[in-house]
Amino acid sequence: MTTSDGLPEKLDRDECLRLIAPGGIGRVGFDDGAGPSVLPVNYVVAGDTVVFRTSFGGRISTGVTTVVRGAEARVAFEVDAIDAERHAGWSVLLRGPAHHLSAAEIEALPDVRPWAGGERESYVSLTPVEVSGRRVG
Amino acid sequence: MTTSDGLPEKLDRDECLRLIAPGGIGRVGFDDGAGPSVLPVNYVVAGDTVVFRTSFGGRISTGVTTVVRGAEARVAFEVDAIDAERHAGWSVLLRGPAHHLSAAEIEALPDVRPWAGGERESYVSLTPVEVSGRRVG
Repeated sequence: MTTSDGLPEKLDRDECLRLIAPGGIGRVGFDDGAGPSVLPVNYVVAGDTVVFRTSFGGRISTGVTTVVRGAEARVAFEVDAIDAERHAGWSVLLRGPAHHLSAAEIEALPDVRPWAGGERESYVSLTPVEVSGRRVG
Repeated sequence: MTTSDGLPEKLDRDECLRLIAPGGIGRVGFDDGAGPSVLPVNYVVAGDTVVFRTSFGGRISTGVTTVVRGAEARVAFEVDAIDAERHAGWSVLLRGPAHHLSAAEIEALPDVRPWAGGERESYVSLTPVEVSGRRVG
């Protein structure tokens, strides 16, 4: 739903968290030292955090892994459901610090299915400090 | 298709450009000064560039607009088609400098439909310097 002036409707934090709760595919944004990068990942919501594993392997996944091993890793995580034909949908953006999960933390997770081969042990947890969202159409 | 070792298949530049050619929804990654951000946008391919307009309004769109007005704006642009159930799909990542289009450049564009209200005149063009992609499943 758009507002009466045709602008996107701003979603509150609770609505944003409700929309992303089912998990699925999201896109993580990070800086690998050569500038911004965006990578699709498979994610689940675990308590107050979003947990994802890098799914598309190779240099890109290595990038986010390396970045998140840094002391001050800050990432963005975007989830959306957009119908390009109807020009309608929603988008949620989370931002905050991220860290690699320990083996014990991974054991405690809900199901995060590996599906792209390789790096199956590499899970990243994002604690959202900023939560924002928009709905259009 | 995955490779015989189960890792994602790397796509070459031509294949990446072919996959994104139809246009549609992509996600732009940028740094707004407070860290990485990711925003869904409606895009078209115009010659050797990708042209998009910010679709979800408000503070986030203002972020990318402000960033791209900078002298050295560098952005990432990701397009994917992923079937979360089948764990299959592809992802393409473009990286390079971006700039706002002039009125004359906008006139020469193929159809880039506005659909989220507001900021309809704000178009950004990305010239991809790096093109990479992966296919899984």
